[in-house]
Amino acid sequence: MSHEPVVAIVGVTGAVGAEFIATMDRRHFPVGKLKALASARSAGKTIDFRGEKIVIEELTEKSFEGVDIALFSAGGGISRKFAPAAVKAGAVVVDNSSAFRMDPNVPLVIPEINAGRIRDHKGIIANPNCSAITALVPLWPIHRQNRIKRMIVSTYQAASGAGAAAMEELVESTRAYLDGRPFTPKVIPLPYAFNVFSHNTAIDPETGYNDEETKVIKETRKIFEDDKIAIGVTCVRVPVLRAHCEAITFECEKPITEDEVRAILSKAPGVKIVDDRAKNYFPMPIDASGQDDVLVGRIRKDLSDASGHSISMFVSADQLLKGAALNAIQIAELLPQRAMA
Amino acid sequence: MSHEPVVAIVGVTGAVGAEFIATMDRRHFPVGKLKALASARSAGKTIDFRGEKIVIEELTEKSFEGVDIALFSAGGGISRKFAPAAVKAGAVVVDNSSAFRMDPNVPLVIPEINAGRIRDHKGIIANPNCSAITALVPLWPIHRQNRIKRMIVSTYQAASGAGAAAMEELVESTRAYLDGRPFTPKVIPLPYAFNVFSHNTAIDPETGYNDEETKVIKETRKIFEDDKIAIGVTCVRVPVLRAHCEAITFECEKPITEDEVRAILSKAPGVKIVDDRAKNYFPMPIDASGQDDVLVGRIRKDLSDASGHSISMFVSADQLLKGAALNAIQIAELLPQRAMA
Repeated sequence: MSHEPVVAIVGVTGAVGAEFIATMDRRHFPVGKLKALASARSAGKTIDFRGEKIVIEELTEKSFEGVDIALFSAGGGISRKFAPAAVKAGAVVVDNSSAFRMDPNVPLVIPEINAGRIRDHKGIIANPNCSAITALVPLWPIHRQNRIKRMIVSTYQAASGAGAAAMEELVESTRAYLDGRPFTPKVIPLPYAFNVFSHNTAIDPETGYNDEETKVIKETRKIFEDDKIAIGVTCVRVPVLRAHCEAITFECEKPITEDEVRAILSKAPGVKIVDDRAKNYFPMPIDASGQDDVLVGRIRKDLSDASGHSISMFVSADQLLKGAALNAIQIAELLPQRAMA
Repeated sequence: MSHEPVVAIVGVTGAVGAEFIATMDRRHFPVGKLKALASARSAGKTIDFRGEKIVIEELTEKSFEGVDIALFSAGGGISRKFAPAAVKAGAVVVDNSSAFRMDPNVPLVIPEINAGRIRDHKGIIANPNCSAITALVPLWPIHRQNRIKRMIVSTYQAASGAGAAAMEELVESTRAYLDGRPFTPKVIPLPYAFNVFSHNTAIDPETGYNDEETKVIKETRKIFEDDKIAIGVTCVRVPVLRAHCEAITFECEKPITEDEVRAILSKAPGVKIVDDRAKNYFPMPIDASGQDDVLVGRIRKDLSDASGHSISMFVSADQLLKGAALNAIQIAELLPQRAMA
């Protein structure tokens, strides 16, 4: 008789936590028992899971007894503090935070790219940054056939990356703006309604790059196992709720055409081409929201590179799904713990 | 006794039309008489100008008798149809549409860059595309010192570029979204509330570039008088009301540092540096709105170019002001017609 795994969700009340639940359900992820963990503030409340009310428990170092798989999405501090306890208790941690991503002992996995790395884990597997995932799912099959040596990325990032409270703040600040009422932000320290701003993470005073941009650079190199890929990136937030977009220009080692890119991407897992020039219909966050695939369009020659080595495209993906919960569940699906004898 | 010019505004009821009036007022532009021209639909209504009520007249080929300066902002079709009549009547046309921009007989002018070209006019002076102006005001002083040979631009464009009705539609569709009501767009054929989409202009089926992108490429070369500058550009609309942003990466012929760029831009006309890494404060459309200057920040080395020839930056400018009405009024200020003997 097979034993269905005991799954713990850390941060179950967050935007990604809710998507963990919905994604497991939708994908019929086998769950023997669900442990819903959150801060003391939420303990005692309940969540619905497969027709049952699950009581949320306060996260402590003792929460992980008997847990097979622990999905963490409660920020880097919580992961650093509690993931070691989960591992010690015998769980495999799939961590959505940036805490362990660059640890050489921790695989950083996008299943469409490097599922094989999962078996190297020593208790923790890291889920990459959402902006990195959104770019890399479509870039990887191209890179495999014709090495990408340089990429320049500009992001159009949704509120969801800053959590459920930021999404709520975008809605509430927009409502206030439309009603002509003042609004004091609590989560994002800048006006968000009908505004665009440089990503709200700390800037490295040396390079001038913010943390989000540095993550994209470092994580791309780790996931592609290519330390030489040259990356320029500008991370920007736009007033969108839950899907990111990115304008990507990349240069390959050998010449490449837009038809070749289209042919590669039409067979790529996790990618859906949305590229209708006649109808002017391309990837949009409103279409990517709730979708598993990374939408890719505006595939065309980069006119700034006469050598024919460069392509530009525009992509969009649900930050909460492929950028977070879905990718983590896909990792969990590949764990032997998923269905133990 | 000097004769203050008779000024006609074509498209006085539009978003740019309103800014023509406000900008002339604010800059004490001398106006002997104002002719407010619009379609038959608006004829008979009035606008306020310097304490007077001006009755809007229907635009016809006879509207330009006695007019010294005609400011056009009613779309390319209206400019093509009526600008020749204005010129024939002796007016100098400053045209905000794309109708004549690439005509070799028409100067395409950003005063901070090529004011001297104004004197070459044969009756029409063209105001460049707003995305081009926003990029070129800060790029020009760099280009003069160290030729820019390649640039890659991703835009974050406001609704205002599609006119007052598009701004209204963004507001109304957002209100409907927040109220949970359905909304049928009339101006922009895509959902705009909390969404991002590729610029709503026709796509060239050959290149895959849309008209807005093609304008940026062609107009940059004409204004810089440099046919070899290599340009890649992705034009995208974001749910912002009236200021555009652009993420720009450019490569110079000689090595260049971020300090050199900062030094050049700190003295550049029409540019304001907003680049506070410690406070994470950079150009935002909400700050650029109502401002004359192009805000420039995120000035940093492009980490994808190890040669040290490339810089990335993020800019924002008011699409209705420097992107349209202000630039046109600046051109008009340099015309001899401004104050004739």
